[in-house]
Amino acid sequence: MTQSVLKAAILGASGYTGAETVRLLRNHPKVEVVAATGNALAGKRLSEIFPHLSGAYDLDVVTSDDVRWDEVDVAFGCLPHGTSQDLIETLPSHVKVVDLSADYRFRDAKAYSAAYGREHLAPERTANAVYGLSELYAEKIAGADLVACPGCYPTAVLLVLLPLMNPLVIDTDTIIIDAKSGASGAGRGLKEGNLFCEVTEGVHAYGVGTHRHTPEIEQELRLMSGDNSVEVTFTPHLIPMARGEMVTCHLRGDADAIHAALVQAYKSQPFVSVLPLGSPPPDTRHVRGTNECRIGVFPDRASGRVIVFGVIDNLVKGSSGQAIQNLNLMMGWDQALGLDVLLPLFP
Amino acid sequence: MTQSVLKAAILGASGYTGAETVRLLRNHPKVEVVAATGNALAGKRLSEIFPHLSGAYDLDVVTSDDVRWDEVDVAFGCLPHGTSQDLIETLPSHVKVVDLSADYRFRDAKAYSAAYGREHLAPERTANAVYGLSELYAEKIAGADLVACPGCYPTAVLLVLLPLMNPLVIDTDTIIIDAKSGASGAGRGLKEGNLFCEVTEGVHAYGVGTHRHTPEIEQELRLMSGDNSVEVTFTPHLIPMARGEMVTCHLRGDADAIHAALVQAYKSQPFVSVLPLGSPPPDTRHVRGTNECRIGVFPDRASGRVIVFGVIDNLVKGSSGQAIQNLNLMMGWDQALGLDVLLPLFP
Amino acid sequence: MTQSVLKAAILGASGYTGAETVRLLRNHPKVEVVAATGNALAGKRLSEIFPHLSGAYDLDVVTSDDVRWDEVDVAFGCLPHGTSQDLIETLPSHVKVVDLSADYRFRDAKAYSAAYGREHLAPERTANAVYGLSELYAEKIAGADLVACPGCYPTAVLLVLLPLMNPLVIDTDTIIIDAKSGASGAGRGLKEGNLFCEVTEGVHAYGVGTHRHTPEIEQELRLMSGDNSVEVTFTPHLIPMARGEMVTCHLRGDADAIHAALVQAYKSQPFVSVLPLGSPPPDTRHVRGTNECRIGVFPDRASGRVIVFGVIDNLVKGSSGQAIQNLNLMMGWDQALGLDVLLPLFP
Amino acid sequence: MTQSVLKAAILGASGYTGAETVRLLRNHPKVEVVAATGNALAGKRLSEIFPHLSGAYDLDVVTSDDVRWDEVDVAFGCLPHGTSQDLIETLPSHVKVVDLSADYRFRDAKAYSAAYGREHLAPERTANAVYGLSELYAEKIAGADLVACPGCYPTAVLLVLLPLMNPLVIDTDTIIIDAKSGASGAGRGLKEGNLFCEVTEGVHAYGVGTHRHTPEIEQELRLMSGDNSVEVTFTPHLIPMARGEMVTCHLRGDADAIHAALVQAYKSQPFVSVLPLGSPPPDTRHVRGTNECRIGVFPDRASGRVIVFGVIDNLVKGSSGQAIQNLNLMMGWDQALGLDVLLPLFP
Repeated sequence: MTQSVLKAAILGASGYTGAETVRLLRNHPKVEVVAATGNALAGKRLSEIFPHLSGAYDLDVVTSDDVRWDEVDVAFGCLPHGTSQDLIETLPSHVKVVDLSADYRFRDAKAYSAAYGREHLAPERTANAVYGLSELYAEKIAGADLVACPGCYPTAVLLVLLPLMNPLVIDTDTIIIDAKSGASGAGRGLKEGNLFCEVTEGVHAYGVGTHRHTPEIEQELRLMSGDNSVEVTFTPHLIPMARGEMVTCHLRGDADAIHAALVQAYKSQPFVSVLPLGSPPPDTRHVRGTNECRIGVFPDRASGRVIVFGVIDNLVKGSSGQAIQNLNLMMGWDQALGLDVLLPLFP
Repeated sequence: MTQSVLKAAILGASGYTGAETVRLLRNHPKVEVVAATGNALAGKRLSEIFPHLSGAYDLDVVTSDDVRWDEVDVAFGCLPHGTSQDLIETLPSHVKVVDLSADYRFRDAKAYSAAYGREHLAPERTANAVYGLSELYAEKIAGADLVACPGCYPTAVLLVLLPLMNPLVIDTDTIIIDAKSGASGAGRGLKEGNLFCEVTEGVHAYGVGTHRHTPEIEQELRLMSGDNSVEVTFTPHLIPMARGEMVTCHLRGDADAIHAALVQAYKSQPFVSVLPLGSPPPDTRHVRGTNECRIGVFPDRASGRVIVFGVIDNLVKGSSGQAIQNLNLMMGWDQALGLDVLLPLFP
Repeated sequence: MTQSVLKAAILGASGYTGAETVRLLRNHPKVEVVAATGNALAGKRLSEIFPHLSGAYDLDVVTSDDVRWDEVDVAFGCLPHGTSQDLIETLPSHVKVVDLSADYRFRDAKAYSAAYGREHLAPERTANAVYGLSELYAEKIAGADLVACPGCYPTAVLLVLLPLMNPLVIDTDTIIIDAKSGASGAGRGLKEGNLFCEVTEGVHAYGVGTHRHTPEIEQELRLMSGDNSVEVTFTPHLIPMARGEMVTCHLRGDADAIHAALVQAYKSQPFVSVLPLGSPPPDTRHVRGTNECRIGVFPDRASGRVIVFGVIDNLVKGSSGQAIQNLNLMMGWDQALGLDVLLPLFP
Repeated sequence: MTQSVLKAAILGASGYTGAETVRLLRNHPKVEVVAATGNALAGKRLSEIFPHLSGAYDLDVVTSDDVRWDEVDVAFGCLPHGTSQDLIETLPSHVKVVDLSADYRFRDAKAYSAAYGREHLAPERTANAVYGLSELYAEKIAGADLVACPGCYPTAVLLVLLPLMNPLVIDTDTIIIDAKSGASGAGRGLKEGNLFCEVTEGVHAYGVGTHRHTPEIEQELRLMSGDNSVEVTFTPHLIPMARGEMVTCHLRGDADAIHAALVQAYKSQPFVSVLPLGSPPPDTRHVRGTNECRIGVFPDRASGRVIVFGVIDNLVKGSSGQAIQNLNLMMGWDQALGLDVLLPLFP
């Protein structure tokens, strides 16, 4: 069986997505974590940085130079946007890459630069990278060497919207996405806005009219619809919770048609549940810790308006879980391998 | 000075709005709380029900029958929707009423019945009651004997929208309000959905397409605009925090014109602040415990779309604070009397 | 393999411990949940009561009369204290019972009555029930038909203290336990004190000097030490979090000796970790969602005083997880079966 | 009246205690804030750093060099421990100082160095500084030019313990203090441990056996009792809340005698409430935002043991509120001036 086990390296193991990837891989029958890299924290044990992993993992964090890359089959890129490519571009070509950063999400390197403020090291590679929205692009992912996992918000938004774009069942002039996220979406970085006292007991919007996930969302909607004029309003809010992400999509269309399109799209998918019409609204608590996306469709009082909710755990379906799902697809395994063991932690 | 002090009774002192009214009146120089009513809890001291008030108030909770109404000048109605009118309609006519429930908010008793599921006891009185949105209807409030305070959501929504309706600076076909509230908005009642474990660390919508504040909002928008076809999408979400309410209004129009109309409307108002264009988004934390509403206007990336945020403390500007502001207006006092002492509690 | 799968019924599936037992059994290779009982909620689907379980379980909640008991091998008692025995005493004798309530924790039915305020239906049975503290009483549990799982606080307290009692390495005159628990410890019942607004952003003690877990703790300490005069101060506090429980034990003794006794007691145990001396204090976050208990030993500045912390997830090791661990022991299976898949959810 | 208004400078206005001092002074009839200093943030408006203060204050943050000290009567030291003295020692002698840091709390500069790891600039001045526990040392504070406000924990602990020390009504060999604090006690500094995701939904101890407030507490207990051997166990825990602090004091003595001593000590004090025996335990929520300390005394089941709780708002009575109370005492004003307007914000 040894030969069938893939050796994985975690690039950037000191952040939340790094730790979450490690947590999830513990139950994966065909992947073994053999290396965890970090810069500032190289030399520490992973369990010192994340005491909740002690007992489960006995790894030292090392610099990427100290990894024996010839023994690594796949790398999970858990580094910040803009620095992920610097390491990924140096990896030997036999190493498959599942990148969780934004660095390879844009087909157009200029769009990337506009959003993330740096030149891309490898414009051609990003042009050919596969956008890893597992349910929608499984076929392309299957053959890929480099998969760029979607941002957490785009994951939830696109799972709701892409099945509505072709054939089109909504009005593309009035797509409004009001999003809510817990604080782990901002990572473990030291910023005043992430302090407990600045997050608890309040709510505020951020990145209004300027968030970098907007062009990412629009890229995919345009590709799917073939209509380059599609644009969305995307307004995220920070909610006093650690995990969880909800997108409230205010749409125009017919609720039944929208619901039918979504049911059809996900009827065979293990990780996307479209709630029956008339169900209570989905709740981020109901997917916490799992790779599930739940979607609920509601007609508004006002005729022709529909509200569609999508909820995910931003650290699982929104990053590390989908990354593993993508690896499963890349390897031709059951996409649920190692992920179906998760049930939501409630309360 | 005795003769200038108004004697107030709190109807329904065992809920959060009752306790908050009492808290706020403690610093009011011209009002004294002389009675606090309750049914189930009659016979207890108010400080047993709300230990945080011990020291400040030494009142017994009594049944309404035990109040000496000839010694009461004003009653604050802090009872649940649907039961408030039952008591208010029995009060002697010399008692001025500031009602915080929904019972007198609708000009049309049938609209009330449709939303709240009971016949109104006094259709004529509700038809003539004054809708107590202090900043917009100060003149009518000044002469009123019965003021119906707006719901918490309508307060924030209408402070944002009413100044945009006449002259009209937004497209009335596409008003979408995505609202977020803390748990105190649901009161102190024992419902599973209000338990700590069901509220913490998650977010979900409720009343989607059906919330009772929608017809209340539409009533006022239609009156102000003179256009009876105005309708809104109103979608509230429950946020894991005790206090605070935010309305995210997705509008079509010109951001500068919208901002200018709001600045003009509130330039002399002590409790509504319109943030300069370019400011960070307003935060419910910045108004916690105060009677302030903060409004921020943001142009979207997508041309012609504008996002306007309004934040309030639902228990102050959204209920008890605005009630006192209305009493001040009714009495011809400075509307800020007793309320300007409050600064937000942050963090 | 079918014949080796145990059929389990959950008694009282509408509370948090019921739902948690169901969640944990989903990954158990040798147990299948075939029935879930409830009174008020009979007739509903389990996934209506707990939407987070939808997809995983497709069970109806039924009354206990509607369970086909001849097809049930084991019952998990997740009913409230005082009502659990009423159902358990009616079960056919072939049904093994793992009870999570307090009803069979006391050897002495009079001690039970004193603490829980009702006569015991089956004093003899409670006298012979096995106290299911898995690590300490594995042998007795192995042969039992009825195991009474310890209370959540006693679980954490006794895991810390029992290994110190015989031989005695602490002063039994000065055992002070200052405990902290999240709100799920109080269950899903509708009480004002469990409302979000009454739990968030504050801390208070409860049951001071009178908590019912004190005699339970003392029963076990006295049995282990053989000293019937052992008494403890036990003071629990409610913390604004859903899950997690910490006991801070203020002891007199030698830190090294205490640490050594604990290391020795748990060196082969999969679910109790004694942190090395000098480690950071254990954190409830580090065991969330798992069956682990972490223990940390700290010498005080003041000579001869030692502080020992124990942390658990009250819904797992403190109730449902330990219950499954006990079933594993009763059946002669690996005690970690179905439980070792869990890694803590952090953050 | 102008001449009676004191001009105040806030040293270090960019932290939580700085902002809280400013908030509280807004309602003080005899103090005006004329300057706010900061280093990194000099040049910004105070309301940019703390948007909740916009509208209330229109101050620029400046470096201390840019303050016109001849126009300043009193300085509130809100700087971090160890840096406060560097600025305070440069102030002109006419400026009265109320310091909120630890820099002048120790009579013995060596004890300070041992606890805070730096040499004291002014050992003689610290030896003569007045320890500003308002209720206990009002007379000394009245004549002081420099008052060192107690730490937040010592404030709560000493309000409970000092009245029990002389005459002695407790056993001084077994004083165990188990403390709980919200995250604002750690300030606004950027540390991983203060991030929302690291604080929410969990509890852990810190500074076990080593916290710097222990020698401060012991200094005062020894001075009051005259017994230099008094020592305490002090174990603080971080609780997921922004404000609030509770000390659970596990003592030996007679509950009635302890209660009587506390009642006697505070019978004329406006800010310390000793709850009647038999009351529910005090709750940090009940003092939030106020200068009140509430104390509750409970006999344990175990004979001769008593649990005494003290709760405060760490940012008010535990720092900025007590600082203003001390200024009032220094000036010979009513100690409650500007502070009695506060009622707790609940929920």
